[in-house]
Amino acid sequence: MADKKRRRADSDSDSASQPFKNLLKSDAQILQILKSVSSSSSSTSKPLTLADLALSATCREVSDLSLSSVQSTIESLVLQLTHQILSGQGFSFTVPSRSSSNQLYVPELDRIVLKDKSTVRPFSHISSVRKTTITAKILSLVHQLCLKNIHVTKRDLFYTDVKLFQDQVQSDAVLDDVSCILGCTRSSLNVIAAEKGVVVGRLIFSDNGDMIDCTKMGMGGKAIPPNIDRVGDMQSDALFILLVEKDAAYIRLAEDRFYNRFPCIIVTAKGQPDVATRLFLKKMKMELKLPVLALVDSDPYGLKILSVYGCGSKNMSYDSANLTTPDIKWLGIRPSDLDKYKIPEQCRLPMTEQDIKTGKDLLEEDFVKKNPGWVEELNLMVKTKQKAEIQALSSFGFQYLSEVYLPLKLQQQDWL
Amino acid sequence: MADKKRRRADSDSDSASQPFKNLLKSDAQILQILKSVSSSSSSTSKPLTLADLALSATCREVSDLSLSSVQSTIESLVLQLTHQILSGQGFSFTVPSRSSSNQLYVPELDRIVLKDKSTVRPFSHISSVRKTTITAKILSLVHQLCLKNIHVTKRDLFYTDVKLFQDQVQSDAVLDDVSCILGCTRSSLNVIAAEKGVVVGRLIFSDNGDMIDCTKMGMGGKAIPPNIDRVGDMQSDALFILLVEKDAAYIRLAEDRFYNRFPCIIVTAKGQPDVATRLFLKKMKMELKLPVLALVDSDPYGLKILSVYGCGSKNMSYDSANLTTPDIKWLGIRPSDLDKYKIPEQCRLPMTEQDIKTGKDLLEEDFVKKNPGWVEELNLMVKTKQKAEIQALSSFGFQYLSEVYLPLKLQQQDWL
Repeated sequence: MADKKRRRADSDSDSASQPFKNLLKSDAQILQILKSVSSSSSSTSKPLTLADLALSATCREVSDLSLSSVQSTIESLVLQLTHQILSGQGFSFTVPSRSSSNQLYVPELDRIVLKDKSTVRPFSHISSVRKTTITAKILSLVHQLCLKNIHVTKRDLFYTDVKLFQDQVQSDAVLDDVSCILGCTRSSLNVIAAEKGVVVGRLIFSDNGDMIDCTKMGMGGKAIPPNIDRVGDMQSDALFILLVEKDAAYIRLAEDRFYNRFPCIIVTAKGQPDVATRLFLKKMKMELKLPVLALVDSDPYGLKILSVYGCGSKNMSYDSANLTTPDIKWLGIRPSDLDKYKIPEQCRLPMTEQDIKTGKDLLEEDFVKKNPGWVEELNLMVKTKQKAEIQALSSFGFQYLSEVYLPLKLQQQDWL
Repeated sequence: MADKKRRRADSDSDSASQPFKNLLKSDAQILQILKSVSSSSSSTSKPLTLADLALSATCREVSDLSLSSVQSTIESLVLQLTHQILSGQGFSFTVPSRSSSNQLYVPELDRIVLKDKSTVRPFSHISSVRKTTITAKILSLVHQLCLKNIHVTKRDLFYTDVKLFQDQVQSDAVLDDVSCILGCTRSSLNVIAAEKGVVVGRLIFSDNGDMIDCTKMGMGGKAIPPNIDRVGDMQSDALFILLVEKDAAYIRLAEDRFYNRFPCIIVTAKGQPDVATRLFLKKMKMELKLPVLALVDSDPYGLKILSVYGCGSKNMSYDSANLTTPDIKWLGIRPSDLDKYKIPEQCRLPMTEQDIKTGKDLLEEDFVKKNPGWVEELNLMVKTKQKAEIQALSSFGFQYLSEVYLPLKLQQQDWL
C-alpha cells in the first residue's frame, strides 16, 4: 500500500501546514549568506587576554601546561617546601582563594576570572593539618600520572586513599586547589571527567592518534573524548558550529544529515555542559575560527547553559580562559520566536515561580547585561511567563526544525 | 628531570605493590584459554523461543517488523475498526495488558514475558474515551513515521499534540500499548530513545550507511546509535564482549587499549542501561556469537543492572526477546573478590539499609535463583554488608584493573 506516490502526496500536504516555508530562499542563496558571515568571523583578531588588559597583576588564570612542565613544577614546589622546612619556617602551602568574593567578571574578556587573594595552609595547625596532608597526597598522585602519562577520573583519585580523603568532595576540592597552586588547567593534571558529549558533521580530527571523520559517523555520531590533550589536527569545511542543548534535536539533525545541506559541525553535551564538551567546543572555535550558533530551549535554564559555554561556571573560574568559548550567538529558540513562529499555545509551558526567579537573577548577571538583545529577550520571557522546548517545533511536523526553522534562521541571520 | 630510567624504576616499585601480579601467565597463554572459551560459546545452538516451548498460545511477545509491515498492520487495523463501527459494534481497541499480574518469568528463556490477558478500550465510555483517542493519535503519528522513514524521540511525539496528551507519561504509556497492539518492538515504530552508550574495540559495523571501525575511535569511542535498525554488517575478531557498568572503568580500558592486548569489544551504557545499548549488545551477541563478560560494581545495584541486560525490565517485558542478551557472565567485581583480591577495608563501603533490602529482594528473583553461583555471591554480600565499586581497585594503582585484575580473571576463567 505504501507506494512512492503516496509518500510524495503526504509530504506536499505537510508543507502546507508548515508556516513560513514559503519565505525560504534557495539553499544556494542561504549558503552565500553563511559564507559571508563565516569569512567576517574568521578575520577577527586574536582574542584578548588578561595580560593585554594589564590585569595580570591583580587577576589569576591558569594555563595548559605540558606533562613535563607539570612534573617539573611539582618537583620545584617540593624542593621549595623542603627548603622552607629546613630553614625553620615550617611546612605550608600557599593556595589561591577560589571563593566567590575572589571572583571577578571582566567585561572585555566576557568571562569570570579569579582575583589574586591567597590563603596559607599550614601543616602545624589543627584546622588545616588534614587539608595540607590531602594537598601533598594529591600532588604526589598527579606526579605519578605525569610519570606514567595516563589519565584517570576524579573517582579513581579518591579511591587511592579513601581513609585520608574520607569523601570525594574533599579530594575534588583539593584537586582544584592543586590546579591553582601549579597554575595549570585540570586537564593538564591528566585528571578527566566522564565524557557525555557527541559531535557529528563536517569535522575531521585526531583522537589519541586515530583520525576521525565526523561526516562518516552515522546517526550516533562520535563520542567527544574525555582528554582534550590527545585531540588535534582539526580540519573542516564547515561554515558554522551548531551547539545544541539536547539530544532529541541533535538526533533529528544527525538523521537528516543537516550538515550536508548546510556545511556545519553539530555538537551537544546532552543537557548541562561537561568539561570535555566545553574544551572541545573551545578548541574547535579557536582552531577553525567558525561562528558558534546555539540552539537551546526558550527557558532560563537554556540561557544558563549558554552562559556556561560562553562565560564559564563560577566553580571553575580559575580556568575560564580554557573552558569558555567567546562570542556564542543565541540562535533560538528565543522568547520572541514563540509568537514570531506561531508556536501553538498548548506547546508553551507556564514558567514556575523558580523559573521566573532564575530569569530575573539572570537579568542581573553581567554577561546578559552586556548584550542588549539578550536583555530584551529575557525581559520578554519574564513578562509573558512562558517557556518552550526546542521540541515544541514538532507541532508543525517532526522535520520542521531541520527543514524550515533552522534554514530560515540562517537565511535571516537571525541570531543575537 | 623525567628521564626514561626513572619511569622504569617507578613502574617496578609499582608492580611490587600490585598483589597477584606474579600469578599472571603470559598473554599468549591467556589468549589460548580465551580462544577455547570463545569457540565453545559460538557452537551453542539456536536460542529457544516461546514457540519452541509451546508457550506462544498463552504468552505474548513482539517482534521486529519492517517499516512497510508496520504500515500495513496499522492500515489493516484501521480497516478492521471501520468495519466494527459500521457493523454497529462501536469503536474500541483491544489492548494487551502490561500489568505485573500479566507478567511471567520463563526459566527456559531466562527472561520475563507477557501473558495473554487483554483489556478492551472503548471510545464510548467516559473512563476510556481519552485513552482511546490518544491511542488513535499515536497510531496515526507512527503511520506518518513509516511513510517518511524517519526516527523521532518520545518527546517529539508528545509535542505534536500537547493539548491531547497533557503529560508525556500518557503518550509514552500508550506508545508501549501500541507496540503490543501491533505486535512489534518499539524500535520498529521508529520511536527511539536518546543514546547514552559508547563502544570501542575490535568491532566494525555500519551506522546509517557509514562503516565504523571501533579500533580507530581513539579514547572517546563511538556513540552507540539510537536506532538499531540502521546498524548492520557487524564484523569482529574479538574473543569476548566486555560489558562495563560505568565510564570511569571504560575510560581506563579505552586509554590502555585493553582490546589490543586481549581482543575484545568494550561497551558501556554509563550506568542504568538504555534501550539503544541493550539492543546493540543483543545484536552483537547474536551476530558475533561471543561470550559477554560483565564488569559491574559489587553492590545490589550492579547486579540489578546485569539483570536488566540479561532478563529485561518489567516495564518493557513485552519486548524482552529483543532487548535481553542471554547468558551474560558475572566477571566481577564479585563480593568474594573483596577478600580474594585483598581490597583494603577503607575502600569497601558499608551497605545501607536500602542496599541490604534490595540485595534480599534480588535473592527472591527467579533470574538470580537459577544461578547457584550468583545466589552464593549475593548471600555473601548481604552477610558481610559490604559493597565496593570497580574503582576500589585503584587503591593498588590506577592501572591495576587493566594490568592485573582483568587478565587474571580471564586466565582463571573466573566468571559465573
